[in-house]
Amino acid sequence: MSHTIAELETPIPVVDLDRLARNLDRAAAYATTHGLALRPHIKTHKSPRIAAEQLKRGAVGVTCATPFEAELMSEVCSDVLVAYPPVGSARASRLAALPSATKLTVALDSLRAIDDIAAAARTADRPIGVYVELDLGMHRVGTPTLDEAIALARAVRERPPLEFAGIAFYPGHVRESVDQQQTKLDALDTSLRAAIDAFDAAGLHPAVVSGGSTPTLWHTHELSGVTEFRPGTYVYNDRTTAAIGACAWEDCAFTVLATVVSTAVPGQAVVDAGTKALGREPMRGTDSADGFGSLLDRPDVVVKSMSEEHGILDLSSTSWRPAVGDKVRIVPNHVCIVVHLNDVIAGLRGDVVETSWPVAARGRGYDL
Amino acid sequence: MSHTIAELETPIPVVDLDRLARNLDRAAAYATTHGLALRPHIKTHKSPRIAAEQLKRGAVGVTCATPFEAELMSEVCSDVLVAYPPVGSARASRLAALPSATKLTVALDSLRAIDDIAAAARTADRPIGVYVELDLGMHRVGTPTLDEAIALARAVRERPPLEFAGIAFYPGHVRESVDQQQTKLDALDTSLRAAIDAFDAAGLHPAVVSGGSTPTLWHTHELSGVTEFRPGTYVYNDRTTAAIGACAWEDCAFTVLATVVSTAVPGQAVVDAGTKALGREPMRGTDSADGFGSLLDRPDVVVKSMSEEHGILDLSSTSWRPAVGDKVRIVPNHVCIVVHLNDVIAGLRGDVVETSWPVAARGRGYDL
Repeated sequence: MSHTIAELETPIPVVDLDRLARNLDRAAAYATTHGLALRPHIKTHKSPRIAAEQLKRGAVGVTCATPFEAELMSEVCSDVLVAYPPVGSARASRLAALPSATKLTVALDSLRAIDDIAAAARTADRPIGVYVELDLGMHRVGTPTLDEAIALARAVRERPPLEFAGIAFYPGHVRESVDQQQTKLDALDTSLRAAIDAFDAAGLHPAVVSGGSTPTLWHTHELSGVTEFRPGTYVYNDRTTAAIGACAWEDCAFTVLATVVSTAVPGQAVVDAGTKALGREPMRGTDSADGFGSLLDRPDVVVKSMSEEHGILDLSSTSWRPAVGDKVRIVPNHVCIVVHLNDVIAGLRGDVVETSWPVAARGRGYDL
Repeated sequence: MSHTIAELETPIPVVDLDRLARNLDRAAAYATTHGLALRPHIKTHKSPRIAAEQLKRGAVGVTCATPFEAELMSEVCSDVLVAYPPVGSARASRLAALPSATKLTVALDSLRAIDDIAAAARTADRPIGVYVELDLGMHRVGTPTLDEAIALARAVRERPPLEFAGIAFYPGHVRESVDQQQTKLDALDTSLRAAIDAFDAAGLHPAVVSGGSTPTLWHTHELSGVTEFRPGTYVYNDRTTAAIGACAWEDCAFTVLATVVSTAVPGQAVVDAGTKALGREPMRGTDSADGFGSLLDRPDVVVKSMSEEHGILDLSSTSWRPAVGDKVRIVPNHVCIVVHLNDVIAGLRGDVVETSWPVAARGRGYDL
């Protein structure tokens, strides 16, 4: 392709390829420096092509949430973690049907999930690793007590070809500014020490302790016993990641290119990226910013409200006045959602559209 | 297909076909009763198949927002309105490239949009109808003054093969409970009378006065001069539509089928429909309900929070305790967004999966 960003139809997500490469490099170097296994969550990009870039830089494997993501990733990756309860025979058998050469691990928090994935593993005659998921403060999934967690690990051991492979947690409750996370990280560290000690005492040494997120990415090495981490957002970053200091504004590789389609109503400009292109995601971990995204080159101009195909730029505190037909690039609050809303992403080198790729694992891959 | 809802993988949108048919019939009968032209907005279903059902019941044509929607609808419909400013040469030429047998109309509010669509119409050598969009209180797009609107209509007249076809407005600011809309409807009525009088006085009689939405659907005939209406949501309805009284709870045809994947954390149950399946849409027009959706058979149980693939059911005010593996059906707050998040929809007759169809116009159809 030889066209430029000016020729693209809008709305469309565009990725700065140099920034993407820098983001991939930085996390890979951090993992190497601290001897941590990087197992990125591919929910952010849903692309085998970007997963391959992560693996090339030393990632030990990938993390997925859905069976469709796992299926597509198994084309480029031989070590897949599904960090999602494998509940229901449809989901469990689909996972167990992944290529036998793929090392498969699942994370779970219930006996029902163990029974479902054990039945599927027996039918498929393959080993499946299991992480027992702990709730270390996020209160979403994970066992609240270590006794329950240890009981689940024992149940896994009793159901070959399942294999107890370690413990997992997700620090999704640690979202504040990077320099204000210490109290929660200290609590996490204490919980992790207790968990590892309890599992060891029960004769169930966790070979893997799997945690990590993008907001806590650069603190991962400070958490006792963590052996692998699963950040997702770091490949692209977004307005939230920059606001909490887990990346710089210049590390935001992903924007939505949009066109101003109306300036008829005073004090605002309407762009063609609305809820169906940008998502209605709030900022998280900060009270200092509102709106649903802001302009890459004018971060003070925010998308103040949206309809399905309309985004309203607030011009009340800027002297900038765009004209109908002008194009803008919007940094979204939460990039993972925006990727999921789109089918294709354009890759930019400067202003040149160098390549494009599909959001391959966006759907569910159901056989209806 | 002969399988039942119990065999479906989750999360998946499912539509009750009997309720869908009733919703289609009811709006068609209303249009007939009041001599109004029904031109449904297909953003809600994005499906040529459902558009065909609307046309079969007497719809005069369809309304679209995006070029891709217009392209797919032109396969089943010969009269397409794109109620979105045709700004930018890429968008305008794509619209003008619709089959020549398709009657195309656009709505716009700027001279730039007129120039863009006029150039595309000349190149394609086809007539294109134009509605001038008025801002009658929503403050999204549309000219704030009648002088501006009339100037735009004159500019359209001066640029054949464009044809001035009428005026349009969207009453998106009328979202309160149906029985509390009267003040805003009275204001709308006054504005409409003034607009029609002004256009008539300028020698620009608007052959079409196009308005309407699902929240105001059943009041459309009370608005002076309105000749066509463009509701979208009414085909499926949703939690918001029911809450404001524009439909009954039993008219909600669309739900997201989800599986309980964790009950480890007390006081809640986690289902596999999160932001990427349900969307993060607030209730609108009512302060009496929160959360992001509620259960079809237990409307008091709401999705209180979400991650990308997790929805958290609040069990704090119910004695109901689902088990891991149980399935639930969630009525979303805003169905148009949920449709856009999914690739395929299963059609149910009772509990039997009778059919399925793709969300055909979900993407953008870019040629990259």
